[in-house]
Amino acid sequence: MKLNEKLVFDEEKYKGDLLNVRKLTVKLPNGCLATREIVKHADAVAILPITSDNKIILEKQWRSPINDVIVEIPAGKIDERDENPREAALRELNEEIGYESQDLQKICSFYTSPGFTDEYMTLYFAKNLVKVDNKLPKDFGENIELFECSIKEALKMIEQGNIKDGKTITAVYYFELLEKEK
Amino acid sequence: MKLNEKLVFDEEKYKGDLLNVRKLTVKLPNGCLATREIVKHADAVAILPITSDNKIILEKQWRSPINDVIVEIPAGKIDERDENPREAALRELNEEIGYESQDLQKICSFYTSPGFTDEYMTLYFAKNLVKVDNKLPKDFGENIELFECSIKEALKMIEQGNIKDGKTITAVYYFELLEKEK
Repeated sequence: MKLNEKLVFDEEKYKGDLLNVRKLTVKLPNGCLATREIVKHADAVAILPITSDNKIILEKQWRSPINDVIVEIPAGKIDERDENPREAALRELNEEIGYESQDLQKICSFYTSPGFTDEYMTLYFAKNLVKVDNKLPKDFGENIELFECSIKEALKMIEQGNIKDGKTITAVYYFELLEKEK
Repeated sequence: MKLNEKLVFDEEKYKGDLLNVRKLTVKLPNGCLATREIVKHADAVAILPITSDNKIILEKQWRSPINDVIVEIPAGKIDERDENPREAALRELNEEIGYESQDLQKICSFYTSPGFTDEYMTLYFAKNLVKVDNKLPKDFGENIELFECSIKEALKMIEQGNIKDGKTITAVYYFELLEKEK
């Protein structure tokens, strides 16, 4: 079966600072027309930081879309002008938790919600953490509270609904898989 | 440290069929003002279907936001009028792969990208699959190609970048964790 849709018309509906919305008219494989609303968003990175005693470092952060504080691993947008994902991950580690890593390993890359947005995220874990001498400032308006927990505690928090961030859950499951393979 | 932001002003920037965009002005914990662009989106479900011979059923689907075909587990929006997440998961299983499940178990729930959207997803795995007699029609404009693979093949596809959908990766990691606990 042919799956591809052919773009017929592409209209900008909203142009913002963080994201743009476009409404596409597409021709389906059967020849019918359909519309697609999509959100264009910068690519991003997220990092699971692991301490020398095998704890993970998590953040509490207010998130406007959900009007609440949520627990997440460090993450942020890639600066499209002059960064690759690895550089962005190291910058975010510095800005958000004040560490650099001698051992940053890629876990995987994924679209966060490909049904409506092109946001593409690369996920890392970071070991051999060393406190930075030259800590970079956080983004304007970014307030973060850090805490550490074991991987078992993180799995419990997922099960109980206290960790409810997609990338964080993915990273915790992956790290538990690594632990089980030891 | 106080993390909460206080809403000062809330402006609708785009009202669409699938999503709405709002621009918020908020007061930060330090008293400064900041703006937040957020995308309001329906809640969703996704299901990892597992066959009697322990294979998983995956879909290939064209996704406009990334202008490409992507491999995903069955998923869809919750119909807010008359569904809970479990009902939505069973409906999507029927519509997209033509099965019902006698054993639908929740994995976890999460925000897909809480930095900019409130989309909240509940993830299940489905065993004891039985072909439905009364298959529901797919959504208009939804074209899907199904295939089966082992969990090891799925892990390889993630590693090689051939599975690049967040919810699918989360579900595959979780299922591999379950397998390792057997």
